[in-house]
Amino acid sequence: MPNSVLLTDLYQLTMLQSYYEQSMEELAVFEFFVRKLPENRGYLVTAGLAQVLTYLEQLQFSSDEIEWLTSTGRFKPSTLDRLATLKFTGDVHAMPEGTVFFANEPILRITAPLPEAQLIESRIINLLHFQTLIASKAARSVLIAPDKLLVDFGMRRAHGSEAALLAARASYLAGFTGSATVAAGMCFGIPIYGTMAHSFIQAYPSESQAFADFAKVNPDNVVFLIDTYDTEAGAQKVVDLAAALHAQGVKIKGVRLDSGDLADHARKVRTILDRGGLNDATIFASGNIDEHKLVELMAQQAPIDGFGIGTRMDTSVDAPYLDCAYKLQEYAGIARRKRSEGKATWPGRKQVYRNYSEDGMMSGDTVTVENAPCAGQPLLQSVMQSGKTVAEQPTLIEAREYTRRQLNGLPMSLRQLGNTPEYPVIISAELQALAKTVDQRNTG
Amino acid sequence: MPNSVLLTDLYQLTMLQSYYEQSMEELAVFEFFVRKLPENRGYLVTAGLAQVLTYLEQLQFSSDEIEWLTSTGRFKPSTLDRLATLKFTGDVHAMPEGTVFFANEPILRITAPLPEAQLIESRIINLLHFQTLIASKAARSVLIAPDKLLVDFGMRRAHGSEAALLAARASYLAGFTGSATVAAGMCFGIPIYGTMAHSFIQAYPSESQAFADFAKVNPDNVVFLIDTYDTEAGAQKVVDLAAALHAQGVKIKGVRLDSGDLADHARKVRTILDRGGLNDATIFASGNIDEHKLVELMAQQAPIDGFGIGTRMDTSVDAPYLDCAYKLQEYAGIARRKRSEGKATWPGRKQVYRNYSEDGMMSGDTVTVENAPCAGQPLLQSVMQSGKTVAEQPTLIEAREYTRRQLNGLPMSLRQLGNTPEYPVIISAELQALAKTVDQRNTG
Repeated sequence: MPNSVLLTDLYQLTMLQSYYEQSMEELAVFEFFVRKLPENRGYLVTAGLAQVLTYLEQLQFSSDEIEWLTSTGRFKPSTLDRLATLKFTGDVHAMPEGTVFFANEPILRITAPLPEAQLIESRIINLLHFQTLIASKAARSVLIAPDKLLVDFGMRRAHGSEAALLAARASYLAGFTGSATVAAGMCFGIPIYGTMAHSFIQAYPSESQAFADFAKVNPDNVVFLIDTYDTEAGAQKVVDLAAALHAQGVKIKGVRLDSGDLADHARKVRTILDRGGLNDATIFASGNIDEHKLVELMAQQAPIDGFGIGTRMDTSVDAPYLDCAYKLQEYAGIARRKRSEGKATWPGRKQVYRNYSEDGMMSGDTVTVENAPCAGQPLLQSVMQSGKTVAEQPTLIEAREYTRRQLNGLPMSLRQLGNTPEYPVIISAELQALAKTVDQRNTG
Repeated sequence: MPNSVLLTDLYQLTMLQSYYEQSMEELAVFEFFVRKLPENRGYLVTAGLAQVLTYLEQLQFSSDEIEWLTSTGRFKPSTLDRLATLKFTGDVHAMPEGTVFFANEPILRITAPLPEAQLIESRIINLLHFQTLIASKAARSVLIAPDKLLVDFGMRRAHGSEAALLAARASYLAGFTGSATVAAGMCFGIPIYGTMAHSFIQAYPSESQAFADFAKVNPDNVVFLIDTYDTEAGAQKVVDLAAALHAQGVKIKGVRLDSGDLADHARKVRTILDRGGLNDATIFASGNIDEHKLVELMAQQAPIDGFGIGTRMDTSVDAPYLDCAYKLQEYAGIARRKRSEGKATWPGRKQVYRNYSEDGMMSGDTVTVENAPCAGQPLLQSVMQSGKTVAEQPTLIEAREYTRRQLNGLPMSLRQLGNTPEYPVIISAELQALAKTVDQRNTG
C-alpha cells in the first residue's frame, strides 16, 4: 500500500472526526520546514515534491479501507461517509526539487480545508523528509567528486523497498550518475549499473573461467570484480584474458574493487592494467564509501574512476533523520503558532527570498510574511491549485540540472564536510511582528 | 512496486544471463548473517521472515517488467524467456522470527538452483536487514520498560512507507503495545493508538474548547495533548473540564506531554491531576524518546505510564544499519568461501546450536556444519520446501509471545545498553576444518 491514505497516524483520523462534527472546515495553512540542521550538514537540498503531488492527486479511501475503518468501531457513520468521498482540493506552494535551503525556511506550504490539510501530514512528512535527507547527503559526494562516476549501491540496506527506490531517485537528482537498483530504472528512467557479485566468481572453479564466461555472455558490459580471492592476482588474470577477449571483439571496460585499502589496491591494479595494455580500462570502487572516504581517496590521488556508494548514503548514516515538522500556521484567516518548549514556530503564510553576491553565489535569505515587500528571489512557487498539479512540472532530468545549478551557487565555505559557517537566514521584522501579535492574542 | 522482482540490483540479472547461457543451474546454498554487531548492540533479534516467505512465493516477472527489460537492450531473448517463467522453487531454513542471535550465525539459508538463489539476494537482504534492525532496537526499550505502554510513533520520519509499516510490525513483534500508523493496523492487525496533534489545539480559539470538542466527538478515546502553550496550565484545564465531561458520561483516559523536561512536567502534572481527582488518568510522553531516555526517566521515577517512541527507533538512529550479508556457501555440492580482506565467510551449510544454563538463560552458541553432532538446541528450521511455505507458520501474536520468551532468556549482562560482554559463539572444529579444506582446494 505505498500510497494508501491509511499511511497516516491515527490521530489524524480522530481529529478529522472532530473537525467534521464541529464544522471546522475553513482554510488551513500548514508549512513543512526543518527546525534545525543536523550537526553534520551546512545546507540541505529539497526533494520529494513530485511524490507529494502524486500522493495528493491520488488521495482517496478505497472501499476496503472504509470497511476496515468501520470494523475498528472508532468512527461514526457520518465520519466514514465524509472519508469515503474525500479528495484533496487544496493549493500547494513549494520550492522546486533540488533547491538548497536552510533551517526555518518553509519548503512546502499546503492551503486547504482543515480536515484535508490535517490528514495528509504524516505521509507528506514521510515523503519530503526521506528524499530531502538523501539528496542532501548525496550532494556532498557530488560536490567532492564532480567528475567521477557515482552510482547508488544502497538498495539492500536501505530501509525497505520505497526507501531503496526513492534513495536512487534522490541521489540521481543530486547529481549521481545512476543506481544499481533495477526498479529505479523502470520507475524513474534512472541509468542503471551492475555486472557481477562475489558469488558469481565463487560458483566457478576458477576466477579466470568466471571472467571469460561473463564477458562472452555480456560483451557490452564487461567490468570484472577482482577482489574475491586476491585483488592484484585478479587484475593480472584480467590482463591475461584481454588478448583472447579482444580477438572475440570484446572490450574490457573496467574492474571493480570492493575490499581492503582501496587507494593502495587501485594504484597497484592501475599499474598492472597499464602494463598489460589496458590503459582504457577503468577502476571502480565500492565498500563502505561515503563523502568522507571520497575526500580521503581524492587527497591520495587514488586512480579510481567511479564509486559505488551504498549503505552509508541510503541510510544517511551520520544524520539518519532531519528535525522537520509540518505545522499549522494559519486557520480561518488567523495566523497561528505553536509555543511548546524548544519547538515554537513562526506563524502565518511565509515566503523565502534569496540574495546573491556579485559572483553569483548565494549570500543570504530572508523569511518573511507572504506578500511583504522583500528583496531577492522568491523561492516558493505555486505547484498545485485546487487539487490539480500546475502544468509543466520539471522532469527528473530537468530537476537534476536545476539542482546542479543550485549546488554551483553554494558558497565554498558551505561545501566543506565539517565546521561550516552558519548561512545567514534573516527573520524579517514583519514576521517577528506577526509572531508578537499572535502571542498577545493567544494566551492559551 | 513493493514486491516487484525488479527490486534487485542489476548485477543479479547480468549474472543470471550468464548462468543461463553457461548452464550453471545446479543447487546453490546462500546464507544470510550479520558479520559483526554494531557497537551499540549486545544481541540482535531476527525479524522479517514472514515478508521473505511472501516475497518468494509471489516471485515472478510481470509482462510489463519483461517488456521494460527488453527495452533496455541488455538481455538476450533466451534470457528474457527464462525470466518470464521464473518461479522460486527452492528450500528455506531460518530461525523463527523473534530469535535472539549473534554475529556469524546464519539466520536464513536458501537452497535453490543458482539463478533463483542469486536473483533474490537484494530483496532478501532488504527485508531481513530492516526488520531485524528495528526489532533489535525496539527490544532494548521493551526490556527497560516492560510494564509501560510503548507505542511506535515513527511513521513520519521512517525512511519511506514500507519502513513505516515494517517498523510498526518489527517493534510490535519485539513487545511494543502498538503503533500510531493506521495502515499497520489494517495490514498486520497491530493495535493502533492516537488522539490529537498540536494543530488541533491551535485551530481553536482556546485550548479548553479544543479539549471539550474532542471529548464530545471521541468519548472513548480521551487523551489530551497538554503542551501546546503551557504544560501545567494545560493540565489544570483538563481538571477544570473533568466534572462537565463526567456529567456527560465521558471518562478522561489521560494526557500526553510532548516537550520540555518530561520527568519534571510529569511530576507536576501528576500532582495537578491527582488534586483534581483524576487519579486514574494516565500520563503518556513523547518527543525524542528512545531506550536511553527511558533509562533516565525510569531512574528518575517519572510518573509516566506510556511512551510514544518514534524517529529514534524507526531510523535506528544509533546504529542505522547492520553489517549483514547473503553469501554463497555451497554450489553443486561443493562448499565455497569468499576470502576478500576483512570479509571472509565460513563455508558450507550450517546449523546454530544454543545451550542454556541451569537458570534457563542462554549460555553459549555453536556454529557448525549441518548434521555434524553438536549439543544444544538447533535454531534453524525448515520453513519452505520447493517454493511452498511449510504449514503452520506462527501468527504475529504467536511470534511476539515467542520473542518475549527469547528476551526472557537473555543473560542480564547482555540487557545493559552499553558495555555488554561478548556472548560466546563457538565455531566448531568441523566448520574450521571445512574452511581449511575449501582454502586448500581453491587457491583462486
